[in-house]
Amino acid sequence: MDDVDERIGALEARLRAVEDELALYRLMTSYGPAADSGDGVKASEIWTEDGVYDSDGAGELEGRGAIVEMLSQDGHQAMVPGCAHMNTPAVIDLDGDRATAVGYSQVWRTDDGTHRVFRLAANRWEFVRTELGWRVVRRTNRRLDTEPAREILHSTPRQ
Amino acid sequence: MDDVDERIGALEARLRAVEDELALYRLMTSYGPAADSGDGVKASEIWTEDGVYDSDGAGELEGRGAIVEMLSQDGHQAMVPGCAHMNTPAVIDLDGDRATAVGYSQVWRTDDGTHRVFRLAANRWEFVRTELGWRVVRRTNRRLDTEPAREILHSTPRQ
Amino acid sequence: MDDVDERIGALEARLRAVEDELALYRLMTSYGPAADSGDGVKASEIWTEDGVYDSDGAGELEGRGAIVEMLSQDGHQAMVPGCAHMNTPAVIDLDGDRATAVGYSQVWRTDDGTHRVFRLAANRWEFVRTELGWRVVRRTNRRLDTEPAREILHSTPRQ
Repeated sequence: MDDVDERIGALEARLRAVEDELALYRLMTSYGPAADSGDGVKASEIWTEDGVYDSDGAGELEGRGAIVEMLSQDGHQAMVPGCAHMNTPAVIDLDGDRATAVGYSQVWRTDDGTHRVFRLAANRWEFVRTELGWRVVRRTNRRLDTEPAREILHSTPRQ
Repeated sequence: MDDVDERIGALEARLRAVEDELALYRLMTSYGPAADSGDGVKASEIWTEDGVYDSDGAGELEGRGAIVEMLSQDGHQAMVPGCAHMNTPAVIDLDGDRATAVGYSQVWRTDDGTHRVFRLAANRWEFVRTELGWRVVRRTNRRLDTEPAREILHSTPRQ
Repeated sequence: MDDVDERIGALEARLRAVEDELALYRLMTSYGPAADSGDGVKASEIWTEDGVYDSDGAGELEGRGAIVEMLSQDGHQAMVPGCAHMNTPAVIDLDGDRATAVGYSQVWRTDDGTHRVFRLAANRWEFVRTELGWRVVRRTNRRLDTEPAREILHSTPRQ
């Protein structure tokens, strides 16, 4: 039975890593629909209570309250009809109860029926496993044509 | 042995959910290449026989035949060279033999060598497990700058 | 015990397939950040030593050395600040120690603070499992408004 125990234990650990990776994809992907439907509270809840959204667009927002406030401002709300915060797939790096990911984001706006890209950025995500599931501890977002964006992209682990 | 049976049974159920999520990603992702290579029949086969593609662009298409017809029309076929129906990752919500997903779509066209975005939309997908694998029961597609798009995005489940 | 052995063996095989699919996603996704941070060596290492990057943009590059050379050229390096090689999700087809994938790529540039799409293409990836993990044997990249792009898209397997 020892061998069976060991094989089952190994499967459980590997399966948990796979489930974690899929959960992290869903977590990152759920930011856009929340922000673009104007629900700042829901968007903020992908972070931990004191999680940080550090963006060279919106500033360094510390804690969910600051994220909600940013998404409630007139500027963001005016963008909402026709706005899309899209992510392309990210490279996830799991490490037990912590994880990171690097990926690109596209923000689109629609004005007078015309879609146009508003902002392209590199993103570095830091996650922690909580009792409620994975949450974002820090998301760093830098406009693509900056040196910090290049540093974020450079931090992607080799596969 | 009871404990071993239980642990193996739990692994089988969890693994099936993971396989389902990956199969649903592939299913959604395979629409674009079929539509953009002009193969309307293949594109329609991601739906069930009587599945619905309800789009405020192309209209409410009921059943594979209607989807094939739309993709065979001059307007679509004229777009095909240089056309791309791209999806960004979607948030999948599994529930046994049913599932839903919410995500964004981008349609690009190329005219005289210039790429331009043609349509950005919010998508809600409803799936059913069939003997042949997962199929789309209904895909609702709404242009991003409309209230129904906002409702689709708002329906994304919390993670 | 035979039944337990069999069930565990089946789980191990299915789980390996799921891990393979996620590893292939990460491999494809890691090309962009390496290329866009100007690290040609890292970008080339997603291929096998003699892997081929066959692009109607950059030419048919045989072996990592040729890929590094292309990414080191003035033309590419001049693009790097504000450049993004983004992929949308791809349809992966696993077959033991080999795999293929079909997907779209977007190359963006940023000039004088303005983002614009530079090239949209269809991609066919061929992979092999090596001792170091999955690597690309051949990536074929064709501009979207060409017949070869349509053939790549047409090769996507039914789901």
